[in-house]
Amino acid sequence: MAMTGVLRPGHVALRVLDIKAALHHYKDVLGLNEVCRDDQGRVFLKAWDEADHHSVVLKECDTAGMEYMGWRVDSDATLKNFAKDIKASGLATDLKWIPAGEHPGTGERFRFTIPTGHVMELYAHKDVTGCGTGYTNPDPWPEGMHGMAPSRFDHCLLYGDDLDGTVKLFTEVLGFKLAEELVGGPGGKQRNAAFMTCSNKPHDVAFIRHTEKNKFHHCSFFLNSWEEVLKAADLISKHKVALDIGPTRHGITRGETIYFFDPSGNRNEVFAGGYIYYPDKPTITWTEDHVGPAIFYHTRELNERFLTVVT
Amino acid sequence: MAMTGVLRPGHVALRVLDIKAALHHYKDVLGLNEVCRDDQGRVFLKAWDEADHHSVVLKECDTAGMEYMGWRVDSDATLKNFAKDIKASGLATDLKWIPAGEHPGTGERFRFTIPTGHVMELYAHKDVTGCGTGYTNPDPWPEGMHGMAPSRFDHCLLYGDDLDGTVKLFTEVLGFKLAEELVGGPGGKQRNAAFMTCSNKPHDVAFIRHTEKNKFHHCSFFLNSWEEVLKAADLISKHKVALDIGPTRHGITRGETIYFFDPSGNRNEVFAGGYIYYPDKPTITWTEDHVGPAIFYHTRELNERFLTVVT
Amino acid sequence: MAMTGVLRPGHVALRVLDIKAALHHYKDVLGLNEVCRDDQGRVFLKAWDEADHHSVVLKECDTAGMEYMGWRVDSDATLKNFAKDIKASGLATDLKWIPAGEHPGTGERFRFTIPTGHVMELYAHKDVTGCGTGYTNPDPWPEGMHGMAPSRFDHCLLYGDDLDGTVKLFTEVLGFKLAEELVGGPGGKQRNAAFMTCSNKPHDVAFIRHTEKNKFHHCSFFLNSWEEVLKAADLISKHKVALDIGPTRHGITRGETIYFFDPSGNRNEVFAGGYIYYPDKPTITWTEDHVGPAIFYHTRELNERFLTVVT
Amino acid sequence: MAMTGVLRPGHVALRVLDIKAALHHYKDVLGLNEVCRDDQGRVFLKAWDEADHHSVVLKECDTAGMEYMGWRVDSDATLKNFAKDIKASGLATDLKWIPAGEHPGTGERFRFTIPTGHVMELYAHKDVTGCGTGYTNPDPWPEGMHGMAPSRFDHCLLYGDDLDGTVKLFTEVLGFKLAEELVGGPGGKQRNAAFMTCSNKPHDVAFIRHTEKNKFHHCSFFLNSWEEVLKAADLISKHKVALDIGPTRHGITRGETIYFFDPSGNRNEVFAGGYIYYPDKPTITWTEDHVGPAIFYHTRELNERFLTVVT
Repeated sequence: MAMTGVLRPGHVALRVLDIKAALHHYKDVLGLNEVCRDDQGRVFLKAWDEADHHSVVLKECDTAGMEYMGWRVDSDATLKNFAKDIKASGLATDLKWIPAGEHPGTGERFRFTIPTGHVMELYAHKDVTGCGTGYTNPDPWPEGMHGMAPSRFDHCLLYGDDLDGTVKLFTEVLGFKLAEELVGGPGGKQRNAAFMTCSNKPHDVAFIRHTEKNKFHHCSFFLNSWEEVLKAADLISKHKVALDIGPTRHGITRGETIYFFDPSGNRNEVFAGGYIYYPDKPTITWTEDHVGPAIFYHTRELNERFLTVVT
Repeated sequence: MAMTGVLRPGHVALRVLDIKAALHHYKDVLGLNEVCRDDQGRVFLKAWDEADHHSVVLKECDTAGMEYMGWRVDSDATLKNFAKDIKASGLATDLKWIPAGEHPGTGERFRFTIPTGHVMELYAHKDVTGCGTGYTNPDPWPEGMHGMAPSRFDHCLLYGDDLDGTVKLFTEVLGFKLAEELVGGPGGKQRNAAFMTCSNKPHDVAFIRHTEKNKFHHCSFFLNSWEEVLKAADLISKHKVALDIGPTRHGITRGETIYFFDPSGNRNEVFAGGYIYYPDKPTITWTEDHVGPAIFYHTRELNERFLTVVT
Repeated sequence: MAMTGVLRPGHVALRVLDIKAALHHYKDVLGLNEVCRDDQGRVFLKAWDEADHHSVVLKECDTAGMEYMGWRVDSDATLKNFAKDIKASGLATDLKWIPAGEHPGTGERFRFTIPTGHVMELYAHKDVTGCGTGYTNPDPWPEGMHGMAPSRFDHCLLYGDDLDGTVKLFTEVLGFKLAEELVGGPGGKQRNAAFMTCSNKPHDVAFIRHTEKNKFHHCSFFLNSWEEVLKAADLISKHKVALDIGPTRHGITRGETIYFFDPSGNRNEVFAGGYIYYPDKPTITWTEDHVGPAIFYHTRELNERFLTVVT
Repeated sequence: MAMTGVLRPGHVALRVLDIKAALHHYKDVLGLNEVCRDDQGRVFLKAWDEADHHSVVLKECDTAGMEYMGWRVDSDATLKNFAKDIKASGLATDLKWIPAGEHPGTGERFRFTIPTGHVMELYAHKDVTGCGTGYTNPDPWPEGMHGMAPSRFDHCLLYGDDLDGTVKLFTEVLGFKLAEELVGGPGGKQRNAAFMTCSNKPHDVAFIRHTEKNKFHHCSFFLNSWEEVLKAADLISKHKVALDIGPTRHGITRGETIYFFDPSGNRNEVFAGGYIYYPDKPTITWTEDHVGPAIFYHTRELNERFLTVVT
């Protein structure tokens, strides 16, 4: 088979300070659709082109940040093998199985904490409730799109201390590839950022070396064009959403992007563009003197906020 | 590993009636870069964002059409296994090994004829000579782009008789998935077109049922935006290239597209857009009464030329 | 003053066969907003960025076509002078004054029939009811846009017999300039089409020589981008509107365009792009052998429908 | 006639510190074409879609800034009348006639200093040497476009002290209209910025109240699309041009924009979009609390550099 193992980022669970304000943001401004709520008060949402039951989970808490990120794997057998391999690797901690049904429409999930302190989970089943256009004679886009209307949840960028351990776990155990990296330090030998992929996308998850564990930089959603990035920027202004930076382009991944904050301070991205990645593509390396254009290609300068504001 | 087996369409070899006219078309209008020529008079070209040695092979012949299409597989072991499996399947004919070096910069290729009559080949090695932007602190696009400037060779659409055999070979032996299909005939039971993928792309190759074997409908190249499709359309007119249809959108794959002919009558496509495919995505089915919008979403009518003009 | 005389196309009054079907088309698909109805059953509409009371008038009749087209002039004095000059020119027939209030929110209109048989009217007053974004700290676009959402009514293309008389009237009496023309016939001396402007737009009205008087080819609405033309094309397909041609580009005016029909068979256009015209710009001439690219730049062929289907 | 008086911004003369560096910038990066040089060492350039002889004049000097800005008027009679009216108004100083030929291909120019200290000139003749596509069966864009490839010089934004005097001169003597304004101060009564137009463009020149006389904020060039703004941003980074801000949108005029500096520190803009202005359109007013979104709609914040960096 051509695509096996970890298939895609399947969900991100975010802590928000005020669920009502968060829902206005994620539904009316970002344009996700609400799927359901559960008795814990969690709200499950998805983007219009996603087939699976949900991709975003919001939960009201005292602090903002990412609770966990979930990955769809290709089968139950793969799920069991990954659980065994992760355990054997010694790279993860707090390993546990979350029973089927704890997320609505979702099978059992294998949860673990990676060296940078983030909680990840793998699962092999989530109900396919269908995308907005259906699978018989579909139109290219559905009626009723609203807000920025991204087509899907795309990736997360996370900050943490043991970057090397996390990269080792993702590449050696979970089968990810290193698409791009930022290096620096003495002799340019230290990897300070790693953009990893399990697909043809330039990244499915990325990590940046940071003093603290388990920090969340942003979760990202995919748009179809640079013009949709402009429309997103306009909506950010209209709705007085806190803008971080953009519209601009990343050097890394070539993405056309805009960053902004949800009402709890969690950073979001919507972006378009990028390239098609293949596992035999040489890793792109960005050196320390090019960290500016690597992150923000147009300004060629990394702003302080990019490095320090995380949840 | 996440992506294994057949990785991507690696090259298409086209027969052209006049190599000089063909080179003007593929280099100056389409915008490919010439890599080298060999002593058979074959010319090897590639698009600006392709890492491998070449992706298009042009050869002057008495008739136009596709000579063969090549696929990059992940390793020598996979190549050997596929050769064995293809032989065992009994679905292919004319199996043979082409020695390394027959294509410059390319390892040995396993060649076979599929049930629709087309010649395919698999290979595990082609020199990585690098894309136009390099791999250290790259700009998002290189200097010197010209013509339509597609980023890569993307897929072929082929016409042939034994569609079922070819689909069986690609899906059961080569690990492809059926992303979209057109069905018709009595009870809507007959598959008349199959769009298959070995990646996250909506298609890497497609076949349409046809009375004759081994017919070539088009080879396709990827653009970054709908605006680049407009620019391509303008270049088609400026250079008085024979336009087929477009700019328009396909219902199938959602692609934003334009079709045109090289001076020998081989159809080309440049396109943008599409969606991200995953192997667990339900197959999209187009019924016979929707064949119009399936192919040309805006006109909702299949023109005669789409069905009959092949090389 | 810099801009004087005839300022802009102010309204087009169309005959439709079924007002309910027409309203679905012009409101839900094209995306105009209904302003009001009058006791004759006429419905008045406008686009989101238009300040004046209305720009489209629909009236149910037994035949489709254009009833009349109205032009805003800069002042009452100018209106009176034009009325006098038109009369003096001997070029127009059926001169009459329509009293103020016959159109809601509109002052008196001077109506006349031009040599090609079309009914035109001039007026100096229409209530400024404001555009969708307002005039104090406006956002760049309003909430609630729907359908194709053009920003304004832009121009009409009309077919008629005495093209020379109409061009004489518009250029010598009404102060229009000839931005582009199609010539043909013996020695290429006959003007077969005239694209005229009273502004910086490449055209505010156009005429094509035709055997019959008073034929309506299309009325056109302005979009902001080529991507909005794609979205319009998608909506045409979704709503199964009768498509004429497009998305494509006109050679004349460089416009990026799509043509389609309302349910009564009246042709509509939405388009983007074009250039800025100045009154000292040389007239662009298209010769008979270039009539194809002049009209449809990509196909370089005039289809029969363009020349014969009028209402 | 429909368009009379001052027709358009015809040229801007800039002082640059190093003509060689400036030419690299204006030709290779911005993408203007060099027309000619004169014996004073001045270099005359134009954009690809401009018909007239030149639109940009560069001259090596010890200080950067704008030397003067020129306006094309419709006729010699108008030129003479404006000269008389300007003199009679008492609003301008340093009135003088520059003889024909002082600029190559240009008739006599009437030069005067406006209340904000800027030097303006009017002229009625400049040789029409033609735009890049010609006037007979033109393609929509010419071969050989390079750099950002704007289609024309569009407007200037200037800083100076006596804003009221300059607005009075432009609106009451030269026939301009006030499309948009920023107000503030006690009771919101003071006009701090004025965007004025002599055409259907949202602005042909703009002024911002400032403590010093005769300061230059930027000269601006027109692009066809938001995607071209992205390409311009990419070129700014590739060529390591000093970026000011963008890509972003202005609230004022709705323009999609990017600002950057030439090697001498003169600010340039390339932009797309905007709306069509008519002389009866209500003036758009931006209040002091909305100055942020007025200038930079996405960030909603005026950066210090916008207010202080001028030449």
